[in-house]
Amino acid sequence: MLPKGTRDLLPDDMAKRKYIVNAITEVFEQHAFRQIETPAIELNKTLSGKYGEEGDRLMFKVLPRGEKLNSLANQSIEFIKSNIEEALRYDLTVPFARMVVDQRNHINLPFKRYQIQNVWRADRPQKGRFREFTQCDADVVGPAGIIQEAELLHIYHRSFHTLNIPVEIRLNHRSLLQGLAELAGASDKLVAFTIGLDKLDKIGWNGVEEEWRQAGIPDIQPEVKELLLTKGTLEKLLPILEKALESIPSAKRGLLELRQLSSILSNAPLGNTALKLDLSLARGLNYYTGCIFEVSALGADMGSIGGGGRYDDLTGIFGWKDLSGVGISFGLDRIQLVMEQLNSFPNDIGLNAEVLFANMDEASSIIGFKLAQELRSKGMRCEVYPVAAKMKKQIDFAVKSNIPFLVILGENERLNQEVTLRNLATGEQSSFSQNDLYEKLK
Amino acid sequence: MLPKGTRDLLPDDMAKRKYIVNAITEVFEQHAFRQIETPAIELNKTLSGKYGEEGDRLMFKVLPRGEKLNSLANQSIEFIKSNIEEALRYDLTVPFARMVVDQRNHINLPFKRYQIQNVWRADRPQKGRFREFTQCDADVVGPAGIIQEAELLHIYHRSFHTLNIPVEIRLNHRSLLQGLAELAGASDKLVAFTIGLDKLDKIGWNGVEEEWRQAGIPDIQPEVKELLLTKGTLEKLLPILEKALESIPSAKRGLLELRQLSSILSNAPLGNTALKLDLSLARGLNYYTGCIFEVSALGADMGSIGGGGRYDDLTGIFGWKDLSGVGISFGLDRIQLVMEQLNSFPNDIGLNAEVLFANMDEASSIIGFKLAQELRSKGMRCEVYPVAAKMKKQIDFAVKSNIPFLVILGENERLNQEVTLRNLATGEQSSFSQNDLYEKLK
Repeated sequence: MLPKGTRDLLPDDMAKRKYIVNAITEVFEQHAFRQIETPAIELNKTLSGKYGEEGDRLMFKVLPRGEKLNSLANQSIEFIKSNIEEALRYDLTVPFARMVVDQRNHINLPFKRYQIQNVWRADRPQKGRFREFTQCDADVVGPAGIIQEAELLHIYHRSFHTLNIPVEIRLNHRSLLQGLAELAGASDKLVAFTIGLDKLDKIGWNGVEEEWRQAGIPDIQPEVKELLLTKGTLEKLLPILEKALESIPSAKRGLLELRQLSSILSNAPLGNTALKLDLSLARGLNYYTGCIFEVSALGADMGSIGGGGRYDDLTGIFGWKDLSGVGISFGLDRIQLVMEQLNSFPNDIGLNAEVLFANMDEASSIIGFKLAQELRSKGMRCEVYPVAAKMKKQIDFAVKSNIPFLVILGENERLNQEVTLRNLATGEQSSFSQNDLYEKLK
Repeated sequence: MLPKGTRDLLPDDMAKRKYIVNAITEVFEQHAFRQIETPAIELNKTLSGKYGEEGDRLMFKVLPRGEKLNSLANQSIEFIKSNIEEALRYDLTVPFARMVVDQRNHINLPFKRYQIQNVWRADRPQKGRFREFTQCDADVVGPAGIIQEAELLHIYHRSFHTLNIPVEIRLNHRSLLQGLAELAGASDKLVAFTIGLDKLDKIGWNGVEEEWRQAGIPDIQPEVKELLLTKGTLEKLLPILEKALESIPSAKRGLLELRQLSSILSNAPLGNTALKLDLSLARGLNYYTGCIFEVSALGADMGSIGGGGRYDDLTGIFGWKDLSGVGISFGLDRIQLVMEQLNSFPNDIGLNAEVLFANMDEASSIIGFKLAQELRSKGMRCEVYPVAAKMKKQIDFAVKSNIPFLVILGENERLNQEVTLRNLATGEQSSFSQNDLYEKLK
């Protein structure tokens, strides 16, 4: 039995996950991102307070040990809580920021890292949501250029293209949201403005307006509403925004960066991946300071399968001020579910054995083992049945395990230095010299 | 800052670890082992009591959350301890046994799995020993045949051969130790007999004899001592043991299995890997019931880099009696240290970028980005400097990051649709058409 919200990953699931991770990893490495890992256990003071009230509630903490544990007896809950020293990784971004500061003498800027590790959140488990799950992140810190955003968009495109998932990437910029809030007379209420906007998918436009009203944001002009609700390509929407926001100082950075991004991408286009500017996209506005991305799979019934953005002060919380970072994340579990929905997995990723050597008796099994080792040394995946069980049992095992071929090596075969090879799908079989086995199978 | 005994793994370390893991994984898969993962967090009742007193002391436990946490206030330490529900994975074998029982309807026997995951032990940190470290295990459960032991020995051989580490595998069998204890008149004191023997490396033969004396084991006859201290090939030692132990019932199984193993391996030899029978090898005797293995690297200053054995009742603790298992483990950290000592790593595993596109100005960087994307789509690892920094700074970055080539794309190059390619090691550079860049670099 397992703790609530955790799971075993059996071979077929693992094969799918590895297929996804390998595809993404290859794209990361082509873009000169290199892998790092941080410990599962961080100091509690590193993590606590970094993810809001929800984070502190859902974070897994580590019980003190030894004398520290004994000192918790007969103490108030406040005392117990304030004596917790360690907690489990809750995301990959905060540990990455901590690591950049700790390892500043061992890295060169711009530093591009990818990280594929599990995180733990004691959330209410539900379909597709687990308390231990894998995050795949790519981030770069150091000198900031919009080329980095373009690169990350290309990484999304190439990864999902390789994985055979058609996607749409939605894009926004914090400075445009600031500009729109200013235009709407709510520039002093940017947080409430974006929190409301972020709920658009769930509560609709009227719900958003109601939230804004309660937050004291004045009624939105129709032309601002129209901008907020428009989605479209950069080429189409950017000129409209440049006009609408030309006199709004806070929008200047956003307009400039998106114009640069548009130039880069018109020279190096994103292929069949749709990139849409969506001014209602407001995720992560409490930490993102520049571009914001969100990816959804077209034709699949699933929320976001990736997201990211620019944070101008990634490491400030750990004492290194004004170091800019920009990054993206891939949702491994959701990508797997989407690929299952869309039938995007190839058929042959399971890495089942390609051939089973049946075990007829000790003398023959010794020859079978020798032949199996020869095939294995040539890279073939082989299985040798470990005991001389009934043939039906061995064949049943092969069929259940999706092993397509059976090698039969009885006394006759052994004495004639032959093998009999049976195709378990068709039942066809033939006998030939042991020396020819690899040629016949490969 | 990090908790005691934990560490960040930076790109160069990760590259080495991945190199090792990929080599071992490929061999596992050729031998029809498939990967699984189990959760980091198991129920405390699954793990506690499974690793002796030391395990219970060193295990990381998870702090209860919410109401459960509040209920710990003003309670005795016994109450607190008995209300711990979750603990972190301490090894891979117990979770594997638990998983085999939980997932019995989803697996076919014999079930061969490999698992490469971290485990946590609050041991005193020291050089090369961390509180979070990676185990790589391959085990098979189900019908038991000595072919499985032969297969695992081949996995060791092929893995270390691929990794360019010459190794010696030491082999023993619990039944032979029982036979020797019986021969020594200590058959009722097998545990004390093997605990003493296991310390031979540390305390020498006289120390072992002293331990035995204190445990009430009678003085050992010279011929038993000689057997215990002899190491040698199966071919050489087995006939001697067969003679010495022929009348000892408890040795029968060991002699039979090693004779079978010897037949298999004489047909499918272990290449340049030395296999030695070592009757003083007594590791893990509290759980191993058949063969025992231990691997050391030749010419390296390091203890065991792998070990394993047969346990006839792997899953009994979880209610599935008499299911046999046999498995081996690879010590990833120690293998990395050995390979560094022996210079066994190839030079080109770091996956640094192969080329850096310098950033001269916005217009040229747009062309550079386009060219970089073309190279990346052909599988080349490229870096584009994100901002138009001073050339010296960009070159310094390339050199520090071990990037061998620099692409320079200034206004001249852009207007002529050329690039300048500089070899940063030699300083040589030449200019040519942008269309020829891939051909020149590949």
